Amino acid sequence: MTLLKRARSAATEEIRSVAENEGLDIDTVRNLLLKGHLVIVQNNCKRIKPLGVGSMLRTKVNANIGTSADLIEIEDEIKKGRAALRYGADTVMDLSTGGDLDHIRKIILKTVDAPVGSVPIYQVYERTSVANISSDDMFNMVRKHCEDGIDFVTVHCGVNNDSLKHLKSGERILDVVSRGGALTIEWMLEHGRENPFYAEFDYLLEIAAEYDVTLSLGDGMRPGCIHDSSDRCEYTEFIALGELVERCHKADVQCMVEGPGHVPLNEIETSVKAMKHLCKGSPLYLLGPVVTDIAPGYDHITAAIGGAIAGMYGADFLCMTTPAEHLALPTIEDIRDGATVTKIAAHAVDLVKNGQKERARIADEEMAKARKSFDWKHQFELAIDKEKAVQIHSRSERTDVCSMCGELCAIKVTKKALEQAKH
Amino acid sequence: MTLLKRARSAATEEIRSVAENEGLDIDTVRNLLLKGHLVIVQNNCKRIKPLGVGSMLRTKVNANIGTSADLIEIEDEIKKGRAALRYGADTVMDLSTGGDLDHIRKIILKTVDAPVGSVPIYQVYERTSVANISSDDMFNMVRKHCEDGIDFVTVHCGVNNDSLKHLKSGERILDVVSRGGALTIEWMLEHGRENPFYAEFDYLLEIAAEYDVTLSLGDGMRPGCIHDSSDRCEYTEFIALGELVERCHKADVQCMVEGPGHVPLNEIETSVKAMKHLCKGSPLYLLGPVVTDIAPGYDHITAAIGGAIAGMYGADFLCMTTPAEHLALPTIEDIRDGATVTKIAAHAVDLVKNGQKERARIADEEMAKARKSFDWKHQFELAIDKEKAVQIHSRSERTDVCSMCGELCAIKVTKKALEQAKH
Repeated sequence: MTLLKRARSAATEEIRSVAENEGLDIDTVRNLLLKGHLVIVQNNCKRIKPLGVGSMLRTKVNANIGTSADLIEIEDEIKKGRAALRYGADTVMDLSTGGDLDHIRKIILKTVDAPVGSVPIYQVYERTSVANISSDDMFNMVRKHCEDGIDFVTVHCGVNNDSLKHLKSGERILDVVSRGGALTIEWMLEHGRENPFYAEFDYLLEIAAEYDVTLSLGDGMRPGCIHDSSDRCEYTEFIALGELVERCHKADVQCMVEGPGHVPLNEIETSVKAMKHLCKGSPLYLLGPVVTDIAPGYDHITAAIGGAIAGMYGADFLCMTTPAEHLALPTIEDIRDGATVTKIAAHAVDLVKNGQKERARIADEEMAKARKSFDWKHQFELAIDKEKAVQIHSRSERTDVCSMCGELCAIKVTKKALEQAKH
Repeated sequence: MTLLKRARSAATEEIRSVAENEGLDIDTVRNLLLKGHLVIVQNNCKRIKPLGVGSMLRTKVNANIGTSADLIEIEDEIKKGRAALRYGADTVMDLSTGGDLDHIRKIILKTVDAPVGSVPIYQVYERTSVANISSDDMFNMVRKHCEDGIDFVTVHCGVNNDSLKHLKSGERILDVVSRGGALTIEWMLEHGRENPFYAEFDYLLEIAAEYDVTLSLGDGMRPGCIHDSSDRCEYTEFIALGELVERCHKADVQCMVEGPGHVPLNEIETSVKAMKHLCKGSPLYLLGPVVTDIAPGYDHITAAIGGAIAGMYGADFLCMTTPAEHLALPTIEDIRDGATVTKIAAHAVDLVKNGQKERARIADEEMAKARKSFDWKHQFELAIDKEKAVQIHSRSERTDVCSMCGELCAIKVTKKALEQAKH
């Protein structure tokens, strides 16, 4: 029995755990879970503590790690996973595409103490060409990942004949930038058939239910540049994903929905609200959105800008990007930067998120008080990245004020003036 | 005769220059100037090319540089100014508070090829204590800066008895975090008098008109933490600034309005719209807004998030912060990081800004096309920070795809699949 099915009769242990972690009452969490407005991520092998993602919950951060054909250093990927968790990520996705994928996945599952997600379709292409891949190969790979203990899997089931028709109209500059989306399209065109993950979605539901894995309905058609955003292709995919969300709920399978991509600032609100609406309030898991195409080297920041806005309008789960996005496989340092910046965006969202803002604001108020009393030690303790703050502040030898303003410190001047005025 | 006065009879040379730079027609620029919706910054000594700031214009970036009592290295400040301009700033403010301030200002004006702003009130406190400062000292200092060739001056004239009353109610945690605001309050409380820049605003207008300097109406009451945002104190200052904007326009003096500060994500839109409304569409010059207090070391990013949102709703001029904000005087490297990230936010705004979006999108479309054709050289040319992009990409030796995905490149896979499907 899946968690969702068990929850229909009563609050489960997982619900209690999430309620406690999130500072919410049990009924609230259970009701949101039953409506599909939040998910509790955990494979039924129960390798990790259950993690809630969705409405009213703290905004979560995912870090993508994994080898590529050009760079296969398993040790590095484990270090990246750990660095990501240390600097703000809540989950990790193993997106390896190079080396012994089964082995890498097992090691990551063993060494990373957090929910792990994957994209099984990548591995289907590991040792064969598209012409030789059957739909069974695809489903079997999903099953294999679930069996290994993966907690959530991305399945690009919104890439279907409907959205492909719009893609073929040729109005996009960058067509498809999702790897899973591209591989699915390649398969569909090669075999002249509908995407099996869409056509036989019930089979996917059976597998997900068996292992109680959360489905992350992938956005294979996400726009890859500002020009392509908010087009028919993308909205057609949202519509398909919305249908599938309903089928997940009927099958007692938990699901999230993935979202764009590259989106200009003024389309993020509409995009997020449309997804939330069409997808029945499902937790939204966003990559970016990146708000300009011309900042390679800084796409952790373009995504943090977009992620903060998206979060304000309903995104629940931010997939970090790193400075290496669009350029290279990230280093450990890139992962650290990406996780920190995405965590900042997520926290900024939590300051205004229903269910979380009262809790989230405690740290900011503490920081303001520590600034007023020049308690640098406490300021560092409260900082999202303590090491960085200490490092910058330590350039100066003063401890009463900072070297930016010295004695002309506004806080100091005002404090003194207001106190003297009272006497 | 001020530019604004001359513009009332016909388009001036400065208007023509701005129109050309911004890709707008001359009448549009003139009409916006006459309404006060944009300013053209240039001291009448005409040291620099006139720069437009405001509605329909490219979003501008300012970099603060300057010594502090603890760090007086003039050479470094000049390097910071140049680095800022190189990495995306359009203007520089000399906020020096340590060393020979007259000398430093003159050197910066001589070496920095861009509009330079200043905050004259800082220097009033250079060699004396608050009790000995007369209102004439304040006005004379503004005149001195104008005489030296400063193009825009910040005057904290919205700090008045009305806003001070609300401050005294003690509801804020951090009272005042603007240095100019704090010094003004100190003076008001010490002398028991209204702020001279507010009480004798006409005198300020005379000086500004004489040198044709743009007044930047400072936000001395800007909130310094999330807790203090959008309070009575801040809105009382907006109201005062709005009155003064009208008086500027009547006196043919150009003005901008400065804004917060620390603001949670969901209050930025309202704040910006309220300022624009109360201040009659004046160009808005924002510091931040910073969207969380707990990210010291990353306040260039918290401000870029806030700045992008503010820009989407009407902010025209973003004052960069650096990683050193709240911690120390920034280094050259900090200035580079701050300028780049703020430029990214400004460009993201321009992608959706009326008057600019068609022009701004050209670069993003070019980038998308360069990505599609794997033209790395052109991608680097289009990047906001080319050096950083080259550096990250050069980790890999491949030139056809990047080391992130290798052969599993979505763009490559889709391109091939769609092409084959056509045949």
